Order: sequence, then C-alpha cells, then structure tokens
Amino acid sequence: MEISVAAPQRLPFTIKPRMHRDKLGKEAMVLGSLTNIKSMSETLCFASVDFGMMNTEIQVVCHGSELCQQLRSIRLNSSVRVVGKLGLKPAPKSAPKPAPGNIEHQEPLEDLLTHKQVEVVATEILCLNSVAPDVHIGKDHSFPSQSRHLQIRFDESLKRRLLLRSRVARYIKEYLGKDFLEIETPILFKSSPEGAREFLVPTRKPGYAYALPQSPQQYKQILMATGVKNYFQFAKCFRDEDLRADRQPEFTQLDLEMAYADGEKVMAKIENLIKSLYLKVSSKHPAISLYPLPKSDFVRMSYEEAMSEHGSDKPDLRINGLIHRIDYFVPDEFRSMLTSVQEPVIEACKLRLNCESQQVRTFLTKFMDSPDAEPFTSNVDGAPGFCVYDSRKPVEGLQSLGFESAEQLKTLYGNLRRPRYHDKKVHKTNTRFEDADLLIIQARPNLPHSGGSTMLGKLRLALHKAAVAEGLIQPDTDHRYLWVTEFPMFTLDNDTDPGQGGTAGFSATHHPFTAPRTAEDVDLLLTDPLKAKADHYDLVVNGIELGGGSRRIHNAEMQKFVMRDIIKMSEERMDDFSHLFEALASGCPPHAGFAIGFDRLMAVLTGVESVKDVIYFPKSSKGEDMMVKSPAPMTNAALSPYHLQLKSPTEP
Amino acid sequence: MEISVAAPQRLPFTIKPRMHRDKLGKEAMVLGSLTNIKSMSETLCFASVDFGMMNTEIQVVCHGSELCQQLRSIRLNSSVRVVGKLGLKPAPKSAPKPAPGNIEHQEPLEDLLTHKQVEVVATEILCLNSVAPDVHIGKDHSFPSQSRHLQIRFDESLKRRLLLRSRVARYIKEYLGKDFLEIETPILFKSSPEGAREFLVPTRKPGYAYALPQSPQQYKQILMATGVKNYFQFAKCFRDEDLRADRQPEFTQLDLEMAYADGEKVMAKIENLIKSLYLKVSSKHPAISLYPLPKSDFVRMSYEEAMSEHGSDKPDLRINGLIHRIDYFVPDEFRSMLTSVQEPVIEACKLRLNCESQQVRTFLTKFMDSPDAEPFTSNVDGAPGFCVYDSRKPVEGLQSLGFESAEQLKTLYGNLRRPRYHDKKVHKTNTRFEDADLLIIQARPNLPHSGGSTMLGKLRLALHKAAVAEGLIQPDTDHRYLWVTEFPMFTLDNDTDPGQGGTAGFSATHHPFTAPRTAEDVDLLLTDPLKAKADHYDLVVNGIELGGGSRRIHNAEMQKFVMRDIIKMSEERMDDFSHLFEALASGCPPHAGFAIGFDRLMAVLTGVESVKDVIYFPKSSKGEDMMVKSPAPMTNAALSPYHLQLKSPTEP
Repeated sequence: MEISVAAPQRLPFTIKPRMHRDKLGKEAMVLGSLTNIKSMSETLCFASVDFGMMNTEIQVVCHGSELCQQLRSIRLNSSVRVVGKLGLKPAPKSAPKPAPGNIEHQEPLEDLLTHKQVEVVATEILCLNSVAPDVHIGKDHSFPSQSRHLQIRFDESLKRRLLLRSRVARYIKEYLGKDFLEIETPILFKSSPEGAREFLVPTRKPGYAYALPQSPQQYKQILMATGVKNYFQFAKCFRDEDLRADRQPEFTQLDLEMAYADGEKVMAKIENLIKSLYLKVSSKHPAISLYPLPKSDFVRMSYEEAMSEHGSDKPDLRINGLIHRIDYFVPDEFRSMLTSVQEPVIEACKLRLNCESQQVRTFLTKFMDSPDAEPFTSNVDGAPGFCVYDSRKPVEGLQSLGFESAEQLKTLYGNLRRPRYHDKKVHKTNTRFEDADLLIIQARPNLPHSGGSTMLGKLRLALHKAAVAEGLIQPDTDHRYLWVTEFPMFTLDNDTDPGQGGTAGFSATHHPFTAPRTAEDVDLLLTDPLKAKADHYDLVVNGIELGGGSRRIHNAEMQKFVMRDIIKMSEERMDDFSHLFEALASGCPPHAGFAIGFDRLMAVLTGVESVKDVIYFPKSSKGEDMMVKSPAPMTNAALSPYHLQLKSPTEP
Repeated sequence: MEISVAAPQRLPFTIKPRMHRDKLGKEAMVLGSLTNIKSMSETLCFASVDFGMMNTEIQVVCHGSELCQQLRSIRLNSSVRVVGKLGLKPAPKSAPKPAPGNIEHQEPLEDLLTHKQVEVVATEILCLNSVAPDVHIGKDHSFPSQSRHLQIRFDESLKRRLLLRSRVARYIKEYLGKDFLEIETPILFKSSPEGAREFLVPTRKPGYAYALPQSPQQYKQILMATGVKNYFQFAKCFRDEDLRADRQPEFTQLDLEMAYADGEKVMAKIENLIKSLYLKVSSKHPAISLYPLPKSDFVRMSYEEAMSEHGSDKPDLRINGLIHRIDYFVPDEFRSMLTSVQEPVIEACKLRLNCESQQVRTFLTKFMDSPDAEPFTSNVDGAPGFCVYDSRKPVEGLQSLGFESAEQLKTLYGNLRRPRYHDKKVHKTNTRFEDADLLIIQARPNLPHSGGSTMLGKLRLALHKAAVAEGLIQPDTDHRYLWVTEFPMFTLDNDTDPGQGGTAGFSATHHPFTAPRTAEDVDLLLTDPLKAKADHYDLVVNGIELGGGSRRIHNAEMQKFVMRDIIKMSEERMDDFSHLFEALASGCPPHAGFAIGFDRLMAVLTGVESVKDVIYFPKSSKGEDMMVKSPAPMTNAALSPYHLQLKSPTEP
C-alpha cells in the first residue's frame, strides 16, 4: 500500500468538499469509495467516488480502453485512489434549480468551487481494498444489526443522526467549556443505593468487586468539596436492569454540578444551553428540520399540577385537553357504574378529533378492542367511561351524566382558566363543546399522587397516540419543553424499585442526596415526611423525561439525619457514605446539579423513537452487541482469578 | 438556603477575577471559602474569601462590632456569602513589584480591575456551610488519600495540574475537532486478545459476561468501515493486571484512527498536535514552565537502532553516552571475566559525570552496593565491568582492556559519527575521553533484539538516574521527543505476557491487527516471520513511552492469514474476530491510528513521576479508591442474579 501523504515532492492535492478555483488544471487525488460506474463506450466511463462521509461524491472521467477496463474491473463500494487533472464539470443541459437551504446544492463562495462543480479526469486508478467476492452491499440492501458497519455506511439518515451526535456533543462542550471544567470521574466505583441495579466487576482480591456507576453523583458532589466550582462530563453510566422502555445497559449522560448554586441557577443554565443548541442546530443543519423553540421561558409546572391536569409527571404539552375533577357533580348512579372504589376521585378529559361523531365512535371501538386497551379495561378501579358530544342527540350525547350534571360539566369547562402554555385558540377548543368531542371519564381512589402517572393520564396519552396514528389528530412536531418541579421527597416502597436499604417503608423519590425544597419541607421531615417536597426538577419535552437534577443536601448532619432518621438506613449502610459525610463536613459549598440523558436528547433532536438509532454501536433489547457478539461465554477458568465459579443450575 | 441568582429585582453582582471599573461603588456578592480573618480591633476586621479555584481571593472589610463578631464566629474554610460595596483596595505602602509572567500580579487591562485590586466592604455576612467542629483542615495540614477532596483543595500544585488536565483535554478536542469526529464506543465489550488481561462484567444471562475494553481498537477499526474518515475519543480503558510501574486499572487514552492514512500521516498529525499543545501550554500557563520544543521534526529511530545504541525501545535522549559494540577487540581474558556466554556481544557505554575520578569510584561503589544494582550483579550473562578514565594511571585507567584494546576503544570513539540528535558539544563529550569518564562494559548473548531493553540499557539508565540524584549529572528538564519505528512484527512467547492464543510460539508484538511494514516484510511472513517488521510507531519522550500506533491490516484475507497461518490461532479463536473480517471485507479503506496515554502525557507535561498526581480520583497501587472504599465486598446474594458464587478457599 503506497498512499503516503506526508512524503516529499510535488504530490497531487487531495480533493475536499470545497476547493479554490486555482486548483483547476492541477493534479488531484481522490481517496474514497467507488459508488457508481457509467460506461458510455469502450473508451469513455464516468465514475462516482465518495471521498467523505455524506454528500461528498465527485465525478471521475476515464478516457481510453485501458483505464476504462481497469475501472470496470473494480467492484462497486471498494476503496479506490484516483489521480488525475481537476476540471470544471460541464453544466447539465437542464440545470436543476438549487433548493434553498439544501446543503447539496449550495452556491459557490466567490473563488471556491464545490466538489459538485468539478470532475477529475483520471490518469491513474487503483483499487486499495476490494469488496470481497462473496459480499453483496450497496444502498439498496438492508442490513441486519450484525452488520452495523453497513447500516451506518448505507443508511443516509442514520449517518446524519450520528454525525449530528458528534456535532451536538462538540457544541455542548464548547458552550459549557467557557465556565465549566470537564472532569473525568472513575468508572470502577462501588455499589450505591441510587435507584437501579449495578453491574459488578469482580477483582482479584477474594470476595471484592467494583461496581459500574449508574451516575457520577457521589464523585461530582465530592468535587464540590475540592474547590471545583462548575463541573461537567459526558459520563458513561451503566444500569443492569430489564431493558424495557428502550433503555441501554450503558448510556451517556451529560452530567453537571455547580457550587453555590440553587435549582434556579441550574435550570437557567440548562434552559439556555438547550435554547442555544436549537439555534445552532436549526441554522447549521437544515436537513434536520428542527422548529426553533419559542423565545419565552420553558413552562414551569409542579408535580401536583402535572399529575392532576396531565395525569403524568412528564406531560406532553402537545395534547390539548387537560384533566379536570368532576366528582362533585357526578350522579351516584353513574359513579357506581364507573367504579366500586369508595369516595373516588372522578376525572374527565376532553379530546377534539378531526372527524365526525360516528368516526369517533368507530375509532373508540377499534381502540378499546385492541391489546393497547387491556390495562384500561382490566383496571381494578373501574373501566373508563366515554361520551361523544353530539348536539343532535338527547342531552347532547352526555346522557350517562344526566341533564343536570351535563350542564354543570359545560359550566365547568366554560369557566376554565387558560393555562399559561395554551394560546387562545387552544383554550377555545378546550372550553367549548363541539360535535364529536370525545369525553373520557375515569375514577381512581382518593389518595395523594405518587409515581409517574394516573390511569386516566395513560389513557389520554394512548388515545392521543392512536388518534394521531389514524390521522384524526394532526401530528405536532414542535418540541414543547417544560420543567416539572416540587416532587415529593419520598415515595412509598414498592416491589419494582430496589429502594435504598432503609426500613422506613419509603425511600427518596430520586436519591437520598436531594435537599428539601423550603424551610417548611425541612419541618415536614419530622412531622409528615411523605408530604415534604424535594428541590428536584425534571426537564420534560413532549412527554419524554430528558433529564433531572436537584439541589443537594450540603450539610453533613442534615444528610445523616435524612438517611438515619427518615429513611432509616442501618449504621452499616450509612458507613458506605462516610466519604460523602466527610466531604460535606469540610465546609462544602451548597450545590445543585443536573443530568441529561444524551442518547435520549439526540433521539428527540433527530425525531426518532429509539435511542438505538442515535448510537454507533447500540446493544439489542437483550443487552447484546449483535456485531461483536457480546456478552460472550465466561468459563470457570476465566473466573478463577476472581475466586468465583459458575453456579450449577441445580444449586439454590 | 437562599442564594437564588436568577430571582427577580436588582441583585448584587457576583465577584469575578476581572471586573469592569464601573462596578466600583456597586453592591457586590462574594460566594466562596473563608480563608483568613485578621482582627484589627473590636470593630475592624479583614477577611479573605476565595471565590474561585486558585489565586482567587478577595479582601473583605468588616466595620462595626456586630459584623466583626459575626465574622469571627465563622470557622475558617467554611463556605460563606458576603454582600457589600465594591471599593478600590488602598495601595500598599511598599507595593511589591509584580513578577513578569506571574498570573497573580497581572496589570489591569484598561478598564478592567482584578480582584486583587478591589475589596468588598461588607454589609452582610452569612455562613452557608460550616466546617464541622471535629474537622481540622487548612493549607498547613497534609491529608491522607482517604481525604482526596482535601488534598485537591489545599495542594496548590495538585490543583494546578488537575486544572491543566481539563485545559489540555479541551485544547486537544478543539484541535482535533476541526477534522476529526469525536465518537463514543462501547465500554461493555467482550474479551479480546490484545495483550493484557481484562475485567469481566457478568450478566444475568447464565454463564455470559461482558469484558471491559483495554482499548477501543476493534470498534475504531470497524468505524473505518462505516465511512467515518477521522475518529478520535478520550477513551476509558481498563487493564486487570498487577499495578506495577505506576499503572491504573482504569486509564484514559486519547485514541484516534484515520482512513486512507498510513503511518506517516498519523505521525505527522500527532507530532503537530504535540507541538501546538506545547506552544499553547507554555504561553498560557507560565506557572507550569514548559520549555518550548525545538522547531525541528521529532527524531526518528528504528527499534534496532534504539535497542543497539540506547539499550531500550524507549530511549531517553537526555542521556548522552550511547552504547557501542566492542567485542571485536576485547581481549579473551577480559571477555572470560565478563561472561561465560559463548561468542557474546560485548557492548560499552561511556558516561561523563561532573566530578573527579575518585568521586566517580565512590559513586560507583555506592550504587553497586545498593539494592538497585541487584539485577546487574546477579545477571546470568555476567556482571558489568567498569573503568574510570584517568590520564595519570597506567593504560589511562583502562588496564582491564589492555593497552592495545584501549587504543582501539579510543579510535572507535574518536571515529563515531555524530547522531542527528546530538549537537557538536555533546558529540565532543561522547567521542573524547577525559579524566573521570565512566566506561561501562556488559556482555550479552548474540541474539536478535527482543523486548523492551538490554541489561546494559537498564544499567545505563539506572546509573544516569543515580548520578542525577547525586548531583553528578545536571538534570535536564527538556522534553526530548522521538519516534521509534520498525518494530519486529512478532515476539517469542514468554511467561509474563498472555499472548494471543495462537500455537506458533510467538505472538504479534503489539496486536495482531498491525500491518507488515513493506512488501519485503509481507514476503518474510512466509519465510521468516520473526524477521518481519511491523508498520508500528511509538511516541517516546525522555525514556517514557507516551503512546503507540500502527497502520492496520485492511484486507480481510491478509488478516485471516496472519491469525490462522502465522500466529496459528484456532478456528474457534478466529471466530471471535468474524465481525472484524466482515468489516474489512466490505471494501474498508486502508487505515492507521494512534493512542496516547493521556494520564501519562499529563504527568510528563506537569513534571511529576506518577500518573496518580494528575488524576482527580486515582486508585492506589492495590487498585483501591481509598476515599469511596472501592472495591467493596461482594456477597453470594449480590452474585446470585449473575449465576455465580464465591469459590470457597478450599476448592481447587
């Protein structure tokens, strides 16, 4: 192989996406993939060589039977080197009008020519590496995940997303780099009680293991005690859990922490970062059509408001109809049809579909017969009730409510206050009843909100999604960001989350380092901890939780108090945090931080559902890398240095 | 805690290292660590508050008994908030002359004032987090590694190095970001035969594990087959080995790979990066006194030359005396005193120490009596011989050689060609014998060079180091970079390195993906593979290997041939690389790459011996994080989901 570029003497210059006009007539070199051959005659061929990653093809012209034969002998998609004279491409007879903003047809910048305007008249063609005879590849094939390299190579949209990933990461580093230090924290960590389960990494010290971090939470808090003011990192994080809900066993988190900051300061920083990122991405990358974000601040919403009005702690603000309590006027008879729960909360939600009443009923029947409806029909608190508003029907289609309640319902809706995130038009839709409006009614026990959603919240989301899929609601591609705040500090223990090893029967909702929100919340710790609010904030966009953060407890005694006296951790468990107590006790500044799921952010920015579509080498839903085939079998021999052995299936 | 900054209304501005003159008289806020209190009287105190990370103290003035009392009640090193009016600090009576280039005393930039020129006349002082009563900290204490946060906080030079680490990483990202994509590759990988041993990460799939990568080698080669042209990453790498030689179980590698590139192109890229980094670092960080690198190219040296003339594959160019073969004129008698090896190679090396002959002898005796000399005295090929040149002695001190050989020795030295990396002065030292010159003579078997050093190479290094420590050689703080090239492609198997699972009796010297250097080396694969040279290059500075790289095999058949027919891997072992064969067979471009040990680079740049001194949270030599106490005990319960159990000590 002879492609030395740093070698002496007048070498041909290498083709670039843009070249100065004075390169015309000079000897040029193209290194790239042979993407097309067009044989005009025995002695004239045209070829395309892609010398870059995307939209970087250049035309190569071959004259003479020898060169043409040489070219034709090379398999498409092989790596080639072409040397020849750079010339202007003859203008096509009917020049296509360049689409504005299309990166492929940009006007030449004064003396610069794009690679689309020139051609190389070949004097030398060399195949550097041929596609093997048994390999069949190209743009028209589709490739399994075993061949991830070919997926990336031939799927333009995947390539575009991956390119954007590098660029967005670079932009964020530049943006934060101005006043944040980028700092690496260890990957070989130890077990911690921050929520999900950890991967273990056994060591040669018998019976000892590292654990892979779920986040750099503890290290970044310790950094605050070292004198670092603003820290960030693109942190590799790991979670050994069932890979439901499009999660990866390893993922990338944009992690940051700020000394002498509270939640407001952190939220302002993140909000500005996101806004400036959209400006950057939408201006520089027209191919990825991001709508610019509204100039106003991100909406703020308390957990309570989100759960009550959206039935979710990650509201999708594109769904217009909110949830309202109607139990004070629901007739007893209807109530008993809806639920057997004693003194239930009854809530309603109105959706407007873009069709006639009859179509709404058909849509509803189809949905309720589908497997998606199973959780709602089998709900122990009672199945949902539906009304389709129809001015031609008795009680306008609201007959299950009865005349009086129907009037109260309309009064309730008519008097709704306009939420700050709805414009007048949306508010009019929400407050007036029109033919074919779908009213959903659902009962639930009268308990404080807890967890991520209510059954009505899930149903509202599912119906909206189904309606969009059926074309009954116009899809909305805006990105509607909001902050959800005032989360409860603690959540009752359940069977699915691992908890934090305390015996109080409840655990920190996010992690035990989260600070109480106000002085009153500190007081509530002693009297009614489940009512205390945490200074935690989630960043949500279109129903997706992009990240979360909090002000942390910065006082060692307060941290011990929460762990020992509120969550009721054992002394032994507390010992695992002695380093954190020590760091806080050294006069550590108050601090607050945030973490954005970077894979998820990229999925949102590029409009794909799965994070797999924005990762170069993702794992399957079973946690497998189909290409390199990991994980791989481990033997007792390989385990032996770690003083471990495989458990035989018969052993308990 | 009330330090909201984004809150409404005219808040005091926050103190910065530089502020505009128009801030004088305005209300300012200082958030930082209380570093000093000076009580002048009951009603006048001065305090220092450090609001940044380094050299960022500001003077606070307190008037009035109440404020002074409040200030005095706060423990030093607590986090505080001070609000007050910004004023000019009165000029000291005898103003110290600012040292040029000293960052602490820079001249004000026109309308900008530095924090050293101003003071805050306090109206409010609030302790945000007090140092706990039982904690004793401060600049004068020294802290164990358990208290890493305090080491970083109070050790200015450590802090400086860590700050520089972030800045150097940032600079490299900017530099490479112009034409390289920064891409993350998976951490959860599978076992590979690239040299050292891997950590396992067991999974819930019974009997299956991921492995942590020793480098992203295979993924970055696959990237070349995806269409990515230039890739880089600050990669987290892992090596489960005895932590001799200042290694960490996890380390950071600046990893890169370039399509359509050969070694020359990669070396040019790295060399330019290093040079521009020195320019950047030495201009912007006068506190870290880096000598600028010479403008000339880095020295190139073949493995053969390095081993022959420096006795090491990572030569320290600061050591002047080179190694020369003298066996052709060594008298039989002396030869038999030196060694019992048949037909040995006998080499000599001359060092010039800055002292009298007698002192050299004393130094030598001391060294040879020290434990450092043990490997040399117990060398099975024979102990070294020494002569101290002394014009007043018989045969000028070279009597063990005899008169005739001594003359031949002087002739040999007198006719030495000047190496390209020695100036005339050094060459004069090397070629002439002067009183007190130390001649070291060592025999070895006449075998081709293999491994990292010869016994004489080690002795030369050890004596040089000891002489520097004794003040007999002037320490040289220049950074002398060079490239070592033309490594043998294969190395005979030994007991210490794990090899690559082949049965040929030898393994790839670096890794089995390294390309042969020339067409002749390809031919040698068939006839005499141990003579074949690889297209591998190491970057060496002052005897330290900073990184290495190579042109890779880009042809699938060649890759299989090397693995199957040369290293003689089993078919089963070959299967582990099927993804790589597939990637290469898709017409993958020729490619070459490099990896720099980033921790080691930072240690070199900051002039410290150990990489621990440039890592925020390093592991101990036993692989332990003393602060968070990892690794931690693992129980059979924790192992159970992974279908593993602890092996009882009695089991085989």
